[in-house]
Amino acid sequence: MPERVSVVENILSANDRLADEIQHQLNESHVFAINLMASPGAGKTTLIERTIEHLSGLFRIGMINGDIATSLDADRAAAAGAQAVQINTGGECHLDAVMLQQGLRKLDLTQLDLLLVENVGNLVCPASFRLGTHKSVLIASTPEGDDKPYKYPGMYRGVDALVINKIDLLPYISFDMDRFRQGVEILNPGVITFPLSCRTQDGITPWIDWLVFNIQNYREK
Amino acid sequence: MPERVSVVENILSANDRLADEIQHQLNESHVFAINLMASPGAGKTTLIERTIEHLSGLFRIGMINGDIATSLDADRAAAAGAQAVQINTGGECHLDAVMLQQGLRKLDLTQLDLLLVENVGNLVCPASFRLGTHKSVLIASTPEGDDKPYKYPGMYRGVDALVINKIDLLPYISFDMDRFRQGVEILNPGVITFPLSCRTQDGITPWIDWLVFNIQNYREK
Repeated sequence: MPERVSVVENILSANDRLADEIQHQLNESHVFAINLMASPGAGKTTLIERTIEHLSGLFRIGMINGDIATSLDADRAAAAGAQAVQINTGGECHLDAVMLQQGLRKLDLTQLDLLLVENVGNLVCPASFRLGTHKSVLIASTPEGDDKPYKYPGMYRGVDALVINKIDLLPYISFDMDRFRQGVEILNPGVITFPLSCRTQDGITPWIDWLVFNIQNYREK
Repeated sequence: MPERVSVVENILSANDRLADEIQHQLNESHVFAINLMASPGAGKTTLIERTIEHLSGLFRIGMINGDIATSLDADRAAAAGAQAVQINTGGECHLDAVMLQQGLRKLDLTQLDLLLVENVGNLVCPASFRLGTHKSVLIASTPEGDDKPYKYPGMYRGVDALVINKIDLLPYISFDMDRFRQGVEILNPGVITFPLSCRTQDGITPWIDWLVFNIQNYREK
């Protein structure tokens, strides 16, 4: 089906061009943006809530949530104190740059320092669509199993940081952290990882410190 | 982008025609087939292992596993005693009927009673591609959270049965079974559900009984 292939390639390169425009637009307003990706239920929204709670005194935070059908996640981020925008993807399995641009129009970027973009819960498709954010973060969770880097290499390969959520459940499940880390190391050598529990807040501080460091570093450029 | 839309529609209807052919082929060989779908890490492969252990004395079982990159799951099913075939989707986020047909060519259908098809771990895309199996089953897991029916309605709407795995973790997580069930009931009224733990085997028996009932019912037709 060469016709389909060329159409898909055109869509991807158009997406990349728009992603570059989005990054330019963010930089004009000095907004540091992160694309948060994960499997359904890994804890994206809860990590965003915790992050907003820790950083809302330091930075003005916006959140764009891509979801297939509801606004539950944006509601939670707004309740935690962020400017929050919901994008319903209408069944699409990922955010793309067009959708993000539509979401950005609903935010006042001049009033933001940090933008958290919550992608659709999916370990496959979001990896193929650049959004123009400055960093990509994958949130894994221990109940998903230690084999996930081996099975979803595209996602693990492309991210700048890896959160390992739900470490409070380790005593109750089979999860070999060494096997998990070996899989990650093959795909993404040296990637920074944050084992933590959004529930107990154990391990949250290094994650928050990494965000603060990156935002400050971005501003100094 | 009307061009893209019409290409996608053509692909879907071609997929449906091929799914009908696959069901015809399965029926010629009297093989009852199930499409197992879930989020990454919900426990598809572990449920398949448990199912093979319980049913291998009663039925001849085959397993086709769709995975992006590895053969870890097919290896586990083969170790548990099934004829197992691995389909690497090469990055695709779902199985489609073409891929399943290719997998079926590697199995001797005359030597099978039950075929378990393990789809790619994804709560979005697999819902759009019929495979020609007789039943579709969704495996949810409690650590994913009780909001998943609300957020992934397409997947919850289309299945014939719902397994709720990892009930052994309920004491350690926030999961409101009533809220979860209400979401399911709106989308898929009366769908049969199997709360169970593949780890402790608690609740496995009703699931096995349902499979046995369906296989016997299929044979009597």
